[in-house]
Amino acid sequence: MLIIGAGWVGRQVAARLAMSGVTIGLIDRTPLVSQQACQWMRTCVTQSNSPLAPGSHAEPANSLEQPACNPSEVSIAAEALDRPWLQYVSALPAMQELTKQQLHQWQPHVALECVPEQLSLKKRVLRQLSELLPDKCIIASNSSYFVPSVLSQFVRLPERFAHLHFHVPVLRQSVADIVGCSQTRPEVLQQLRHLAERIEQYPLMLRHEHPGYVFNWLLQAVLKAALELVALDVVDSEDVDRSWKAVTGMQVGPFGMMDQIGLDVIDQVLSNARWAVPLTVSQEQLLAILRPLVEKGRLGVKSGAGFYDYQEPNP
Amino acid sequence: MLIIGAGWVGRQVAARLAMSGVTIGLIDRTPLVSQQACQWMRTCVTQSNSPLAPGSHAEPANSLEQPACNPSEVSIAAEALDRPWLQYVSALPAMQELTKQQLHQWQPHVALECVPEQLSLKKRVLRQLSELLPDKCIIASNSSYFVPSVLSQFVRLPERFAHLHFHVPVLRQSVADIVGCSQTRPEVLQQLRHLAERIEQYPLMLRHEHPGYVFNWLLQAVLKAALELVALDVVDSEDVDRSWKAVTGMQVGPFGMMDQIGLDVIDQVLSNARWAVPLTVSQEQLLAILRPLVEKGRLGVKSGAGFYDYQEPNP
Repeated sequence: MLIIGAGWVGRQVAARLAMSGVTIGLIDRTPLVSQQACQWMRTCVTQSNSPLAPGSHAEPANSLEQPACNPSEVSIAAEALDRPWLQYVSALPAMQELTKQQLHQWQPHVALECVPEQLSLKKRVLRQLSELLPDKCIIASNSSYFVPSVLSQFVRLPERFAHLHFHVPVLRQSVADIVGCSQTRPEVLQQLRHLAERIEQYPLMLRHEHPGYVFNWLLQAVLKAALELVALDVVDSEDVDRSWKAVTGMQVGPFGMMDQIGLDVIDQVLSNARWAVPLTVSQEQLLAILRPLVEKGRLGVKSGAGFYDYQEPNP
Repeated sequence: MLIIGAGWVGRQVAARLAMSGVTIGLIDRTPLVSQQACQWMRTCVTQSNSPLAPGSHAEPANSLEQPACNPSEVSIAAEALDRPWLQYVSALPAMQELTKQQLHQWQPHVALECVPEQLSLKKRVLRQLSELLPDKCIIASNSSYFVPSVLSQFVRLPERFAHLHFHVPVLRQSVADIVGCSQTRPEVLQQLRHLAERIEQYPLMLRHEHPGYVFNWLLQAVLKAALELVALDVVDSEDVDRSWKAVTGMQVGPFGMMDQIGLDVIDQVLSNARWAVPLTVSQEQLLAILRPLVEKGRLGVKSGAGFYDYQEPNP
């Protein structure tokens, strides 16, 4: 498998896949970055945040963007001994230096682009991949920002293109969003599903593309609501976060999450007005999800059943 | 202090206040309910969810609506010995049976209504309280649904009326929302602040009223976004919850939260179209919160500073 983009996300995906025995070729426009990523795997990826230690949710606060550790903390020599999976990872030359023949010899089944969320960059990388890779190779995007139908126009074979989207930190059990464009063949989605299952990421198969998939759609709603509270001068950002943390038990609030994501990213998303996607979901459509349950007396935990069944309703 | 409404929320507020030595008179339209509430305090309120054991967030999943235990689980006699604070709680007769004189003898500083979220009921209770209570007594509402200016019209002295809103389970360290109507005197808000501080609930002082205060405003955004995903047939409710839980580390997702709140309540809120509050916050206003930070290079954790300062930026 090829991973294009060896930054913070790409290197995590590479490590997680290699731990499950998937051969990984890391490509970055700056080959030094690929080498740094391998170095990071040698020195930073500890057993505690391995996918093989499931459910390690000790610090959900730090789950959004922060690195797991400081490279200087761990001795390289000692750690390398514990990482036999590192043999599966190779830092390849930059794409423009790779020939078609070299890549075909590598026999990749999947090429996953993890480059920054700039449309011009994605366009260039996807076109290059389409030229260099054998037809049978699936081209996938880890984009959390663009929907598949926007990116599929840049590949030669959209029927073998889909999105496989990971949440950081990837080195924790989580979900992976999987969705194609209208042309994507079902077997392509199934292959990506198997890949996600292999690394113990629950494959969340979307029925059709949707901005932000599932989690990011929920998250943007919280972040927008948080910004509204400050814009309306109801409370300060500190109090928004305080309230969220106190009631949910999470270690980070919406403004802390924005900090972790990067305010430039939030700025970009807001500027592009992607949060203002005109959805045609009326109150009636939302009610239609609840009403049949309410009419059956399925009122939630208090009645013993709602969206789910509960063994012990409230006394 | 008087607490009107001895249901699931009222009894928790009463227990938490009594634990800090506040004398509580519990009033319910069905006096049996007040007695049941006292019985619940004797049998159910364990040390583990006492406000004096801070930060017990072991199960944020159950934080929204579920009772802490089953009354039949605990022996009454044994437990009563450990609860000297129970002496501070009295079950009073129903309000219609109380005379003005009886209530004045009680010398309440604050009367907090915790009755169900029906406007006609709130109206009746607030009017009765206005008639019966001495002028100096603060009348407060725990409503999470109506804003203060809606309820203040039902009290005789709106300058001594405000909202003091608790989050369930109240027996855990959390935040209490405090906000008045335009007539509310500052010293009234200060007294409610001291009351919240006395029971170790962080007083969240809103600058002006806002639907859902802070947390419920954020929550409604998530719940609405979750319903949208199902209405748009992107994924099923189970997958929405799976995604939320996997990425946040919380033990409950949006649909599980709706179950805990009660689908009838969500139905009512949606039907009243309270989620469609026409806010006049533009993209530009939201950007105005972020842009000055971005321009200063405060990009979040990765640059060492954003809304907050971070000691160790990402390597």
